[in-house]
Amino acid sequence: MNTERLIQQLAFALELDQLKTVIRRTLLLDKSRYENSAEHSWHVAVMALVLAEHANERVDVGHVLKLLLVHDIVEIDAGDTYVYDTDGQADKDVREQEAAARLFGLLPPEQAAELRAWWDEFEAAVTPEAKFARALDRFQPLLHNYHTQGQSWQTHGVSSDRVLTRSEEMAEGAASFWEHAKALVEAAVEQGFLAR
Amino acid sequence: MNTERLIQQLAFALELDQLKTVIRRTLLLDKSRYENSAEHSWHVAVMALVLAEHANERVDVGHVLKLLLVHDIVEIDAGDTYVYDTDGQADKDVREQEAAARLFGLLPPEQAAELRAWWDEFEAAVTPEAKFARALDRFQPLLHNYHTQGQSWQTHGVSSDRVLTRSEEMAEGAASFWEHAKALVEAAVEQGFLAR
Repeated sequence: MNTERLIQQLAFALELDQLKTVIRRTLLLDKSRYENSAEHSWHVAVMALVLAEHANERVDVGHVLKLLLVHDIVEIDAGDTYVYDTDGQADKDVREQEAAARLFGLLPPEQAAELRAWWDEFEAAVTPEAKFARALDRFQPLLHNYHTQGQSWQTHGVSSDRVLTRSEEMAEGAASFWEHAKALVEAAVEQGFLAR
Repeated sequence: MNTERLIQQLAFALELDQLKTVIRRTLLLDKSRYENSAEHSWHVAVMALVLAEHANERVDVGHVLKLLLVHDIVEIDAGDTYVYDTDGQADKDVREQEAAARLFGLLPPEQAAELRAWWDEFEAAVTPEAKFARALDRFQPLLHNYHTQGQSWQTHGVSSDRVLTRSEEMAEGAASFWEHAKALVEAAVEQGFLAR
């Protein structure tokens, strides 16, 4: 038993707790509060388990899970950058690179490299697993925004063209998500809770 | 593209959101609030990724992830039963069986059976993956309770012998977690925040 190694890994595990206090712009469906990035990560991971058949290319679901479970960890240091926040997007990369170095660096070196590689893979959006994981990461908040009558879109002054521009990447990972998303955006506009 | 099937799967995905409002007896490390079962599920899943080497038997980490991602879903209907709540434990099985039937039953039949089988496997505590997943599920709240100076133990009137009795199952999945847990319980008693 390598106690020192376990202690080091537990320091990382305890640090993870802070992702539960990183608040996103997505409301829970009961509108009681905004979602945090830890519970969001769980939600998209379970969605991956039941929606994998919709990926454009065959995916290794276990690998999709790994990408989704670590994809937001950098937010512990870098915060959640709202996709419609142009200023925040500008320095997002630098902040997240620094966060990745510190947070994954808490682990033993070979594990730090492994988790870092999963996060890099998610960010690069090239592999089938990354494309599908990213499609889920875009699809889930859109579903929440639609089913909470666009309250967060209105609060943040977001119009349908911006939602569509931001959602289009879904098509790279799962064409059926994108088709469904377009239909929801159209329905939201028709029902008057998303500005054209 | 099978739109009807996607819609059915999304109904399950949307139902999952409610796990974010099921409150556990574990405080976040900053003591700002109690943890919910969705973010807890994410936390133990990432812990599985970095702690798998400590499992007593070799485990398929991808399968451990599946067990952990679904292990608390029944709480959406059945609620979280505190491990030290004797009355709650008495009818826990019936409530959870009904919850599993309804919640997993939202999915297409073969997926309902698949997720149900993962939950059953977790509950049965027989396979190496289930034993390790359960060890993590016991270890994470103990770590939180220790690192929040036993506040939740005190609030709920829990003494060290009950913590040890409840934690001992960890040894089935990961002997080093159990050794570490015993040391933390002893340290908590010595520091005066856990009653002997």
